[in-house]
Amino acid sequence: MVAKHKQACSIAGFLNIFGDAWTFLIIREAFYGTTRFSDFQRHTGAAKNLLSERLSMLVENGILEKVNVGTMGARYAYHITDKGRSLQPLLAAIILWSNDNLYPEGQEPNLVVNRETGEPVREFDLHLKGLPEGDLQKFAVVAGPGASDAARERLGTIAR
Amino acid sequence: MVAKHKQACSIAGFLNIFGDAWTFLIIREAFYGTTRFSDFQRHTGAAKNLLSERLSMLVENGILEKVNVGTMGARYAYHITDKGRSLQPLLAAIILWSNDNLYPEGQEPNLVVNRETGEPVREFDLHLKGLPEGDLQKFAVVAGPGASDAARERLGTIAR
Repeated sequence: MVAKHKQACSIAGFLNIFGDAWTFLIIREAFYGTTRFSDFQRHTGAAKNLLSERLSMLVENGILEKVNVGTMGARYAYHITDKGRSLQPLLAAIILWSNDNLYPEGQEPNLVVNRETGEPVREFDLHLKGLPEGDLQKFAVVAGPGASDAARERLGTIAR
Repeated sequence: MVAKHKQACSIAGFLNIFGDAWTFLIIREAFYGTTRFSDFQRHTGAAKNLLSERLSMLVENGILEKVNVGTMGARYAYHITDKGRSLQPLLAAIILWSNDNLYPEGQEPNLVVNRETGEPVREFDLHLKGLPEGDLQKFAVVAGPGASDAARERLGTIAR
């Protein structure tokens, strides 16, 4: 079970869904084209009950869709939704950060490559709409409209 | 304890450090300027033993640095390292994805804003160096030099 943070924080909200060791492996599999319970199990190595709980949680949160694909009786497949697909930039960023920081060059388990040329991509930039390109120092995180009073007091609601 | 995946996968490697409900809250705090154990505890709500284990793990992995800042006897502060700071784009992307997908507009707990104008940033793009801008469909994930034979067979080493 993923811990449920109660604090109003956009990161805590994210962690309530994805904050465990398995969920992003399941998401990875969905991007690799895995749809069947037994394939998710084989490729992630997750225990059955854990996998079952996580898949249900991802369906509840609209990241995967559970579809009956059986022709003779029920048989289920898990398909990634558009909401799930919107995690793609995050996954790519995680792979690139991981390769850059956790593995010596030449020992990366995975590579992100240009699909057409096969050329590896090693660096990424995050561009925030409305900020000058390449200037990530120009952003601040502030309390939003759904913040608690404590967060509002702590972070302020304007840039600091 | 964060689960230790054994499979050679850049995402699994990332999850071995960050794949739990608390680590990114601790990283968040480090970015907010928190340095003291008691402040990490207060702001994340993590239990002492869990927090202690996670802080040590982050120090071991070079994300935080434990510094003796005591003048009369030892007193420790945790400072974010350059490696830790390199997580900033990921954190921003997580906040923006979270706001876009988990909260109705007007109920976001946090906002990313332009530090100078206070104007909220709501969208982001990931730019992969070497790929045409804005064309994220042009990348593929393949087995890298550190992949297992199974992964190599499954993913291929060239774009698919």
